[in-house]
Amino acid sequence: MQKSMDKAAQAMLQVAEEQNIKTVWDRYQAQLPQCGFGETGLCCRHCLQGPCRIDPFGEGPQVGTCGANADVMVARGLGRAIAAGTASHSGHAKHLVHTLHKWVHHEAPDYPIEDEGKLRALANRLGVSEKDKPVPQVAAEVAELALQEYSERLTPSLWLEKFITPGRKALYEKMGVMLYGIDSSVAEMMHRTTYGVDQDPLNIILGGIKCALGDYVGMHIGTDLSDIIFGTPKVTATRANMGALKKDAVNIAVHGHNPVLSDIVARVAKEMNDEARAAGAPAGVNIVGICCTGNEVMMRHGVPLVANAVSQELPILTGVMDAIVADYQCIMPGMADISESFHTKLITTMSIAKTTKATHIQFEESTAKESAKQIIRLGIEAFKKRDPAKINIPKVETQGLAGFSTEQIVAALGLLNKEDPLKPLIDNIVNGNIQGVALFAGCNTVKITQDYNYMTMAKELAKNNVLLLATGCAAACFAREGMLNSDAANEYAGPGLKAVLTAVGKAAGLNGPLPFILHMGSCVDNTRAADVAVAVANKLGVDIDKLPVVASAPEEVTEKAVSIGTWAVALGLPTHVGVVPPVTGSPAVVKILTETAKAVFGGYFIPEPDPVKAANALFGAIKERRKGLGLSN
Amino acid sequence: MQKSMDKAAQAMLQVAEEQNIKTVWDRYQAQLPQCGFGETGLCCRHCLQGPCRIDPFGEGPQVGTCGANADVMVARGLGRAIAAGTASHSGHAKHLVHTLHKWVHHEAPDYPIEDEGKLRALANRLGVSEKDKPVPQVAAEVAELALQEYSERLTPSLWLEKFITPGRKALYEKMGVMLYGIDSSVAEMMHRTTYGVDQDPLNIILGGIKCALGDYVGMHIGTDLSDIIFGTPKVTATRANMGALKKDAVNIAVHGHNPVLSDIVARVAKEMNDEARAAGAPAGVNIVGICCTGNEVMMRHGVPLVANAVSQELPILTGVMDAIVADYQCIMPGMADISESFHTKLITTMSIAKTTKATHIQFEESTAKESAKQIIRLGIEAFKKRDPAKINIPKVETQGLAGFSTEQIVAALGLLNKEDPLKPLIDNIVNGNIQGVALFAGCNTVKITQDYNYMTMAKELAKNNVLLLATGCAAACFAREGMLNSDAANEYAGPGLKAVLTAVGKAAGLNGPLPFILHMGSCVDNTRAADVAVAVANKLGVDIDKLPVVASAPEEVTEKAVSIGTWAVALGLPTHVGVVPPVTGSPAVVKILTETAKAVFGGYFIPEPDPVKAANALFGAIKERRKGLGLSN
Repeated sequence: MQKSMDKAAQAMLQVAEEQNIKTVWDRYQAQLPQCGFGETGLCCRHCLQGPCRIDPFGEGPQVGTCGANADVMVARGLGRAIAAGTASHSGHAKHLVHTLHKWVHHEAPDYPIEDEGKLRALANRLGVSEKDKPVPQVAAEVAELALQEYSERLTPSLWLEKFITPGRKALYEKMGVMLYGIDSSVAEMMHRTTYGVDQDPLNIILGGIKCALGDYVGMHIGTDLSDIIFGTPKVTATRANMGALKKDAVNIAVHGHNPVLSDIVARVAKEMNDEARAAGAPAGVNIVGICCTGNEVMMRHGVPLVANAVSQELPILTGVMDAIVADYQCIMPGMADISESFHTKLITTMSIAKTTKATHIQFEESTAKESAKQIIRLGIEAFKKRDPAKINIPKVETQGLAGFSTEQIVAALGLLNKEDPLKPLIDNIVNGNIQGVALFAGCNTVKITQDYNYMTMAKELAKNNVLLLATGCAAACFAREGMLNSDAANEYAGPGLKAVLTAVGKAAGLNGPLPFILHMGSCVDNTRAADVAVAVANKLGVDIDKLPVVASAPEEVTEKAVSIGTWAVALGLPTHVGVVPPVTGSPAVVKILTETAKAVFGGYFIPEPDPVKAANALFGAIKERRKGLGLSN
Repeated sequence: MQKSMDKAAQAMLQVAEEQNIKTVWDRYQAQLPQCGFGETGLCCRHCLQGPCRIDPFGEGPQVGTCGANADVMVARGLGRAIAAGTASHSGHAKHLVHTLHKWVHHEAPDYPIEDEGKLRALANRLGVSEKDKPVPQVAAEVAELALQEYSERLTPSLWLEKFITPGRKALYEKMGVMLYGIDSSVAEMMHRTTYGVDQDPLNIILGGIKCALGDYVGMHIGTDLSDIIFGTPKVTATRANMGALKKDAVNIAVHGHNPVLSDIVARVAKEMNDEARAAGAPAGVNIVGICCTGNEVMMRHGVPLVANAVSQELPILTGVMDAIVADYQCIMPGMADISESFHTKLITTMSIAKTTKATHIQFEESTAKESAKQIIRLGIEAFKKRDPAKINIPKVETQGLAGFSTEQIVAALGLLNKEDPLKPLIDNIVNGNIQGVALFAGCNTVKITQDYNYMTMAKELAKNNVLLLATGCAAACFAREGMLNSDAANEYAGPGLKAVLTAVGKAAGLNGPLPFILHMGSCVDNTRAADVAVAVANKLGVDIDKLPVVASAPEEVTEKAVSIGTWAVALGLPTHVGVVPPVTGSPAVVKILTETAKAVFGGYFIPEPDPVKAANALFGAIKERRKGLGLSN
């Protein structure tokens, strides 16, 4: 199997092979064959009477020591993955809440409040009267409400109530999955999956849905506060892939997820060009992005994204990656080993995410700029230690547009209809120019040729006039692969879709159609897409599960992806996964996630490794929903 | 290996063998050999690029796909176990907080507030002015403060600050492990152990300690509110083991942990005797206990405890177990299968703990008495379906004292010195009559002959004049085995210890010494013992890690036990575990838990499967600390 479709990644993998440098693909090969019990979810370590395993062929034991059967074991494992994903996204968001709170209390002086309008709009939506109040006061009230989302609440989550359809809210209450507190939902899942608590797979999965709604709210808060503090993304021309690394600059990658770190680094870099030049780098400091924090600074500062997810180690092999500064999530421990083979300085910054082999600079909001400078200086120092013999920058660089926040999509549609921006979208869905909308999210995995499922599915759906939205590593993939521009729209979009994209592009003053894939943000930004769906559903007076909107994580890896997928289902979306999570050991759980979920929530999982079949399944779901809405075209 | 030392359990295991009924021991046998990767902590399913395994012999892969090595994998697994344990104990406590809150708001009318004195004492300790306030107002303020312990706090945990030594508090701040919110600490651990976050085993374990302090606070709240609502336990003469089941009564077992259910069932049972008699049970309703909720009602109502932990299935085999009503935690899924082979009605009651094969009666505080009656009626119905041929009640019943709450221990010591109750304890430690104190906690496991480690270690330590405290399944073991009475003290306690116990017994008007093991409560009640240690430390002006106090979980099973052990270490206690958790795959993690922990926190883990060696190690630790205090005797 080819490791990656990405030309730059391919070039660096060639270098790795020549120099016998082991990457994630080699480590994966060494793991094969992977444990069949783990793959199917049929092992359990939730107590010390274990570890226990269930024989999927029915010959060995069918229950663990405690008596838990395959269904219970698989459901518990899934529940804990959702809890971890929710904790991660909402932990990221909580960090932003604390940053805003500190800003209010003059403890985060280096941070801006870029989008006062969004702050006030959010306050209004949350029921906070903001009129005539100064920004710090509104920020204080919003931060307080956000903190309360994590508390052991006696009332349902305010964010969920305000950002979901009335129909969903009623359904969640009825099914007992309404979210109260985010952290509470994580703790409850950990409780119910411990030894001798929940033993009903359906009940555990309903608990998982409740917890995943905590993921939804956590992500929403994350996006809201990132936009308020750092600015709501605007459509931005940007470049991507490793060709954006510069031989004559100090190249520093921000890696991880939270703009609390990366946005400040990107801002401060401009002040450090002279120091870099003095060290022998005429092009100054070149900030690039890896993974989702790369998406954050790409959207807001046009910083090029050089790699993501499975290919995150490869920029080191260019020999010009002077420093990589990481916050948290998806930072492969292997990064430390590979950077040791080069001059690359790996810098960790967060108290909850250290690496024994990296330099740790504790990043505090109170001294953010100073820490950012310190980090950049480490990159400048490392630059001096480059080995010229190792320099090898692949000449792969793409152009594209990023930054399609909900607000920007509404603004773009507003170019066609100022009074009623959603109308052109709805009209074009009704007339069939746009058959439906698919959100691509998730990661890249070593188990699939990098980008292959994304690219195959995107082309299949686009030719069927499905508008694509992308976040996180999906968005990064399409950026790296040069899909976020007019050329790609001209090449791949079906005629109806192309017509709409061209009309919007023309109204926006572009020389061609909008991209057929709209880069909506990082992986924490999936609720941007949900907000559009909620707005359309509310406008039409139908619930989300009636809309021709689908989701896909075709190359997913993280527990975060599991929780996103779960709330997508709870929102009512047919949700494809290209890597089947460890649930196949329980046909009962698989049935709950597919059939029962559809009957109850309208949304359901579509596990399908083959990308063509997956695209067909999603298009089939779109067609089914169009039919349900009386749209026969 | 013998399955159990418990004579009643042995008799029922004989029945199981004769009737070919499979119990936990059979299920464990079917699992053997257990997976070596899981046993050593060397497998990981925290992302979908896995499952990954590390070869403990150094021949196969030494890192997972992401690059995580053995140390990271093992530390992450341990961290998640602590998170689950903390979530469980604190979830139980949170349930009590909501019950108290509902009581304040007239939504839990069937609940008493038995101990106004404790409510007021707690309020005072927490800094709430309670003077001249009516009980509901004080209760409302305490419930509010307790709820806030679960929130995303900006200030350290109030409970921890108020119930720990100043030295520990300073140490926790210094080490960055101070608890803020309980649920927050669980979520943070789930975040830091997800793919690509924390990759430093020491940092992960420090996070585990922070989370375990959430377990400490959660348990403390659980005990505090149980005492306030249901009464602080008083020393109570009680019986234990399966001989307490009655052929001529409707036998209903409360199983699980939370008195919110069991205490009401025990209270209401008295009103149901006539109905039971009408159904043909002349002795009426006989409530018995299984596991820790059994300890709760044993302490407060003298209800006999018939089985616990690993032997929980066996009362069903008596043929007279008419109903088992469960809340949550440690309810083996196997219970449902075995009860199906008998007339026994298995009833689940909690929304987070269902079983596909059981009858579910949702237990709400608003209708507690009515639900309790409904449950008891199901037992009465089941009674009518008994198969007389299957009746086989082992004639094993013990006598003993339970209910040594902190308050009762202080009261008992107050009989010797009214003004200064702690003085007799301290004096006797100083003069060497009492060499030290050992807290026994934890479970029974199928991996060890039931009760063997407890009994062996208790006898070894007692003969060396170590006073024993016991909670949870440890306390239940000693109750079933007849160790909680004067006879056992006379037989096993060393001369110094016996003299002290006899003096207190005499002052209390007993016919002999106090038991040499003080039954302090259920497994959520471990902070009762910690409170005594904190009081003694504060009185002496030394920190807990200087006291000759140790802890042991010699037969532990649950993730809850892992979190208890972790906070015991953080409190400064040498802490023995008889079942080695899945950490042996990382010598670095083992070193952190033993050596580094000792250097930093004073407390440390002593993993030792052999009970005699374990007792010697604990006594050695006591001797070392006595020496440190200048006590050479």
